Amino acid sequence: MIILGVDPGLTRCGVGVIEAGAYRRLSFIHVDVIRSDPQQSQDLRLLRIWEGLSGKIERFAPDVVSIESVFAQHNINTVLGTAQVAGLAMVAAAQRNIPVATHTPSQVKLAVTGNGRAGKLQVERMVTRILGLNKLPDPPDAADALAQAITHALHPSGELMGGEREQHLTPAQRLWAEKIHQSKREGNRMHGRGM
Amino acid sequence: MIILGVDPGLTRCGVGVIEAGAYRRLSFIHVDVIRSDPQQSQDLRLLRIWEGLSGKIERFAPDVVSIESVFAQHNINTVLGTAQVAGLAMVAAAQRNIPVATHTPSQVKLAVTGNGRAGKLQVERMVTRILGLNKLPDPPDAADALAQAITHALHPSGELMGGEREQHLTPAQRLWAEKIHQSKREGNRMHGRGM
Repeated sequence: MIILGVDPGLTRCGVGVIEAGAYRRLSFIHVDVIRSDPQQSQDLRLLRIWEGLSGKIERFAPDVVSIESVFAQHNINTVLGTAQVAGLAMVAAAQRNIPVATHTPSQVKLAVTGNGRAGKLQVERMVTRILGLNKLPDPPDAADALAQAITHALHPSGELMGGEREQHLTPAQRLWAEKIHQSKREGNRMHGRGM
Repeated sequence: MIILGVDPGLTRCGVGVIEAGAYRRLSFIHVDVIRSDPQQSQDLRLLRIWEGLSGKIERFAPDVVSIESVFAQHNINTVLGTAQVAGLAMVAAAQRNIPVATHTPSQVKLAVTGNGRAGKLQVERMVTRILGLNKLPDPPDAADALAQAITHALHPSGELMGGEREQHLTPAQRLWAEKIHQSKREGNRMHGRGM
């Protein structure tokens, strides 16, 4: 199964592609960052990202596109641009009948490092190890996109859109789902303090 | 000049098309609301809106697409969906080399009624009068999309993306720009109180 992970962003949009084989063996296929010029107007920047994302999806024909969920905890203008890019990724996938999944940043950290509040470097190191790479992915946005794809490979039942969630879980998956719910509750409390 | 106005929304996205002729004579061409099913997943809903917007732009081949600006003053989840739809409208226009403009809700109210805080019914009535319609546009989202197009017809220099803003203004346009700035400052204060 080919999984294309997206770390959405208007200035830098990370794309990571992996293959999930038998026994959850994960292999690296591709990583890249699609950039748009902050000097350009919003419409042209979104068009640039749209073309970049469509090109990647066309090229790698993934079985699923997994996108980092967008929250409103940071700078609101950044969030709107990020949400727009996530929306473009959804449409680019849906147009080709490719299922879309989303995983939150803390789900990704938990899946990749075992700690829902892991730091960036810890995520990068674990992505490198899990995929058997020779060096850290570069730039960091790229590691986040690969981590998003890895998370979906390990926990595909989590947040598949339009799909049946958490209906036919194995005991291990149910344990995972509980951990996620706990992590979400902690995350909500954390965001609550910041707002 | 054909102007296609968009009142972005995930559940209901208004589209209004007008022609701006000589002496600022405005004529009605088309109005519609593109709907998506709230029961469907986000990716399929965005795809539905994307196809609807692309179809309208293809059909009416506007000279400009004018989109209501998205702010974060209301329910944040609604705002993210609205921002995503506005982003899709921008890409659908930019793909066809059609310039994109944005006008804020208070700019639209000011342009159409002379009052930046006009009520919905007042906007609907003025849209009906300006375009010489027999009855109020229905549903209301439709009136907002027509109002957005009318605003751009009356004040095209305001917020054209990637264009030169407020550089070659006539005295009347400069007066308008000042009113807008004032209205924006008032709007900011208003939103500041609410947040």
